[in-house]
Amino acid sequence: MSYLNRIYSGLKPYTPGEQMSDQNYIKLNTNENPYEASEKARKYAQAELSKTRLYQDPENSRLAEAIAKYHHVNQNQVIITNGSDEVLYFIFAGFFTGEKPLLFPNITYGFYRVYAGFCGVNYREVPLKADFTIDLDDYTKGNANIIIANPNAPTGLKMEPSDIERILKADQNSLVVVDEAYVDFGGTSCIRLVEKYDNLIVVQTFSKARQLAGARVGFAISHEKNISDLKKIKYSINPYNVNRISEAMAIGAMEDQEHFEKTISKVIETREAFTSAIREKGFLVLDSSTNFVFAKHPGIKGKALYTKLREKGFLVRHFDTGLLTDFIRISIGKMEDMMLLADAFDNILREAGQ
Amino acid sequence: MSYLNRIYSGLKPYTPGEQMSDQNYIKLNTNENPYEASEKARKYAQAELSKTRLYQDPENSRLAEAIAKYHHVNQNQVIITNGSDEVLYFIFAGFFTGEKPLLFPNITYGFYRVYAGFCGVNYREVPLKADFTIDLDDYTKGNANIIIANPNAPTGLKMEPSDIERILKADQNSLVVVDEAYVDFGGTSCIRLVEKYDNLIVVQTFSKARQLAGARVGFAISHEKNISDLKKIKYSINPYNVNRISEAMAIGAMEDQEHFEKTISKVIETREAFTSAIREKGFLVLDSSTNFVFAKHPGIKGKALYTKLREKGFLVRHFDTGLLTDFIRISIGKMEDMMLLADAFDNILREAGQ
Repeated sequence: MSYLNRIYSGLKPYTPGEQMSDQNYIKLNTNENPYEASEKARKYAQAELSKTRLYQDPENSRLAEAIAKYHHVNQNQVIITNGSDEVLYFIFAGFFTGEKPLLFPNITYGFYRVYAGFCGVNYREVPLKADFTIDLDDYTKGNANIIIANPNAPTGLKMEPSDIERILKADQNSLVVVDEAYVDFGGTSCIRLVEKYDNLIVVQTFSKARQLAGARVGFAISHEKNISDLKKIKYSINPYNVNRISEAMAIGAMEDQEHFEKTISKVIETREAFTSAIREKGFLVLDSSTNFVFAKHPGIKGKALYTKLREKGFLVRHFDTGLLTDFIRISIGKMEDMMLLADAFDNILREAGQ
Repeated sequence: MSYLNRIYSGLKPYTPGEQMSDQNYIKLNTNENPYEASEKARKYAQAELSKTRLYQDPENSRLAEAIAKYHHVNQNQVIITNGSDEVLYFIFAGFFTGEKPLLFPNITYGFYRVYAGFCGVNYREVPLKADFTIDLDDYTKGNANIIIANPNAPTGLKMEPSDIERILKADQNSLVVVDEAYVDFGGTSCIRLVEKYDNLIVVQTFSKARQLAGARVGFAISHEKNISDLKKIKYSINPYNVNRISEAMAIGAMEDQEHFEKTISKVIETREAFTSAIREKGFLVLDSSTNFVFAKHPGIKGKALYTKLREKGFLVRHFDTGLLTDFIRISIGKMEDMMLLADAFDNILREAGQ
């Protein structure tokens, strides 16, 4: 028999990208950064390894202070979480469970649907336009909470903060959450708008541009009242959510601005070179402001492309649903790996008679 | 205005023990281990610091395998979480939110009440007997889920698995969760009963006897169906919940049985010496099977004792509620610190004219 509450019988949990223990793949499927974390991050983490007998500060104040300083907000406008997934869960559970509907694009981070399902949120998925952009008019009608990934995933397309501001202005009694997981690779952050709009929560992560996917650190910035509400959720679920080693790594990553900028530049440079290279081969590639590209080829379906790449030792991500099924999402790795991938495309297209 | 769902307006989050950044205290307030983690744990963690760009295996399979092997269960009977607090939350959210009431002692880990409040659980706190032990008859009437900390906190008292088995047997349609955070310091685990009872979930942590409080690793062992249900919750909230560094540390800690046993022996030896020493000074000390003692003195109230100890540089925990208010909870530190504390008691009692 099952002891699980029946309300969860239809639960559709999130399916993470494959994490192979097998190292024989060039892994371009979960938007990991191809460069290792800053040496400073590793050094700070190492100093914590002989202190694990002690709980960390549950507020992670030193990290909150570093983030606050970097983004020119107050420390009480920051909450640190176990990856940005955790703060997204706090937001869904705390803010989106009332009667007001929640809107998000029908093509976006697949976890929003999972959180909404788990938390029993009244949500509606709003179709993107045919070019995969958001129709602002869908989000300015009022009386709905909104969550938008900017840049969006898996499309890689970005919106300008001025557009987000139109949404924020339209109904200040509803909450607007902007998930900026990929913002450092070419988007513009909405953090500056927090000062002006109490109804904005900006979510960021250390997993992508800060190279800490495997250390799990995320955060949100908002009006202090919203942060205080999110902390009520945190202290009702898991007060010691971010361990001391990961906290120290994140502080080190924040302090090494040079490493941050240098590795971002390399990812962007590689993305642009790779995009040009595969467009020449006939691929449609959306304009990415992230560390991945979303691409399709008129001559070969997404699933077939995914499978053939896997046979050749490349792991990319394919979403086997509706509008996404023709595409594959390719994380941007090191230049040499991306050029190997471009070559592999040549072979696959040749084999497919294209 | 607040965007938080009104259902949370009466929320009473957990209050963690003080975590001072100030190092001038002898810190005996959050049941931390006085010894550092095994060198093997630190070595394994260090090897991960240059791999953080990559997500960890979301199943934490290597650690799950190590735990399964150690406890003679199958790997699919284990779930790894971000401290045991996280798996407790999964259990409350997933299993305790139906109509069936949940029972737990009125004196126990304070977080159960918080989870129950947050998740909207129909719960009842069952009074302990005057000697702070559990009345088994309260838990064998059927038609109620049950959570028991064994050994209990903050009393430090243990129950035998044969008593837990009576509860398990009484109603196999209800779930019994045994929280064994402190079991390694003198209790007997109920993990062996998992084989026989599908309605048992045993929760343990690496925070206490494995010295990883600041790395955040906990786990639960149960029938594979319950673990699979708990994973549905995990994959609906935070699939990458335990980072790769903490996972590696926990594996190292599991492999160093000698360090584990040696440090436990030292804690137990210190606990017994300290208990004898302060009993001689007139303290009532409950028989502890944990790494803390729960004690009171007839001549001085718990709050006053807490305050005076703080003035003298010792941080202990005082719970300012009902039956607990006369007591203080003292974590077991190194022998020399505990003897300093015993001396401090002499001074405090003298100053109080006792």
